[in-house]
Amino acid sequence: MDASLINTFAAYGGAVGQRVAGASEAAKLGAVAVVVRSMASNNDDIPHTGTLHYEEGVKAIPAVAISTNSADLLSKAVADDASLKLYVETHCKTLPDVLSYNVIGEMYGSGNTDEYIVVGGHLDSWDLGDGSHDDGAGCVQSIEVLRILKGLKYTPQKNIRAVMYMNEENGLRGGLKYAELASFNKEKHIAAIESDRGGFTPKGFTISGSEAARTSLMSWKHLFEPYTIYDFGKEGGGADIGPLKDQGTALIGFLPDSQRYFNYHHTGIDTFDKIDKRELELGAASMAALVYLIDKYGIDGNP
Amino acid sequence: MDASLINTFAAYGGAVGQRVAGASEAAKLGAVAVVVRSMASNNDDIPHTGTLHYEEGVKAIPAVAISTNSADLLSKAVADDASLKLYVETHCKTLPDVLSYNVIGEMYGSGNTDEYIVVGGHLDSWDLGDGSHDDGAGCVQSIEVLRILKGLKYTPQKNIRAVMYMNEENGLRGGLKYAELASFNKEKHIAAIESDRGGFTPKGFTISGSEAARTSLMSWKHLFEPYTIYDFGKEGGGADIGPLKDQGTALIGFLPDSQRYFNYHHTGIDTFDKIDKRELELGAASMAALVYLIDKYGIDGNP
Repeated sequence: MDASLINTFAAYGGAVGQRVAGASEAAKLGAVAVVVRSMASNNDDIPHTGTLHYEEGVKAIPAVAISTNSADLLSKAVADDASLKLYVETHCKTLPDVLSYNVIGEMYGSGNTDEYIVVGGHLDSWDLGDGSHDDGAGCVQSIEVLRILKGLKYTPQKNIRAVMYMNEENGLRGGLKYAELASFNKEKHIAAIESDRGGFTPKGFTISGSEAARTSLMSWKHLFEPYTIYDFGKEGGGADIGPLKDQGTALIGFLPDSQRYFNYHHTGIDTFDKIDKRELELGAASMAALVYLIDKYGIDGNP
Repeated sequence: MDASLINTFAAYGGAVGQRVAGASEAAKLGAVAVVVRSMASNNDDIPHTGTLHYEEGVKAIPAVAISTNSADLLSKAVADDASLKLYVETHCKTLPDVLSYNVIGEMYGSGNTDEYIVVGGHLDSWDLGDGSHDDGAGCVQSIEVLRILKGLKYTPQKNIRAVMYMNEENGLRGGLKYAELASFNKEKHIAAIESDRGGFTPKGFTISGSEAARTSLMSWKHLFEPYTIYDFGKEGGGADIGPLKDQGTALIGFLPDSQRYFNYHHTGIDTFDKIDKRELELGAASMAALVYLIDKYGIDGNP
């Protein structure tokens, strides 16, 4: 991962192909197994894991991610001794699918409205750790948005849903099913917000949608600046809300500080003690503020 | 501390008088001792300590800071039983002063210049913990600024100093002595930068100085924005550099994210493991960039 990139997600995006496609690319060249340096922002001794895609028609060879420190050690050992042999033993397997569900909470709009605003994260996590930042934080924040609005005794004009999507990590089937049912039930989703970048200090929101939707978001930027939230309008949404794009929904990504995310992502240490309560709450509050603005003023030029 | 304030330093400033002046104010009303709720952003079980000032001519009664959780428990116990007695035992004492020193590193300017830019933090810490954020981070970052400039083979026009001030916590004598000697030696300090708000993700810089100096700083804001550093020009400098104010020095405060600072400040857990390497380095890099700009273009309208 290119440590010189301030946005650690950009660094991850630039490197993760080595893990996703590495096994099949190596197999084409005759490799019997592949060892990948963990996608991580720091030097540590734990594996940072994640999706691997085996290409159709290419031999599916064993593949492991090792820690950044271990990878540095191994690179040095190979450089010192080209005849070095490495023994790899892995017990990973993919179990059969089981039936599971999205989990949805809803505040009903005050009018006879078929319009929806959704705010969500994903319920599943990668195998290791608890998934506290990825994406326990997003789930808790989405529930907290509804709790804040109820706590303020706010009656929304539109229907507001907190959606905990299932299966983001391994197929996105919760997000796909949600969009399919939204279309089937003729629920007009004007905006979908996703929190899936950890429970860190809020920096702003990304958006993927019409120019009118972007204009709406940018018109509210000054309302967040007193809270030192400045980063608005870069392109981006979220994996789980992505399938709503065809329905004209403004897709909005919650953008927290990204510096520590890849210390924990898909590791055994993405645990509750890595969450700072104030940072988590400020994120939820900024999401609640945005939901309020969209509910009150609309987005995409439509009130 | 008012948790609703986004700037935790403002929350601290609004509450810390209870610890600083609480003992003397209580003594005037006949108190035999005073127990203060820790200045902290979170609920925990450790004391967050700091300066206490005994007013001249008022009885110096014992004073302790207890954890936020303990304070909540005690408040409840007192409310339940007004006749509750509290036993306080404290072994704190102030030892005699010893001789100590500021520690200074310097890169000499390329010209025959009497102009100085200083960047610094303070070497001492409160009794508990290691003072890793307060202010080990500021010291390391100040050294790192010189290392970065040397690493880039940059020859500064002006003299650039990394100054580790002694005795910030208990009298500011390092900062006072530094300013005294700068004046005595006719060293023209055009700008002084202080990092004393922890080694967290950089958000910007505060300034205390002339309008021309502020104008210079604001003219460089756009150069930091690609690195998502947006918060420029609020009023503020730093404790150690404060005594340089009378010499016309532009006083600049490094402004990192403040959300976690008062989890650790003046506690036994302000330790090395609370520092994130990337966050620390980004702070140092932003300080180095600002030193470079001041060196190259001047500040305060003077090239």
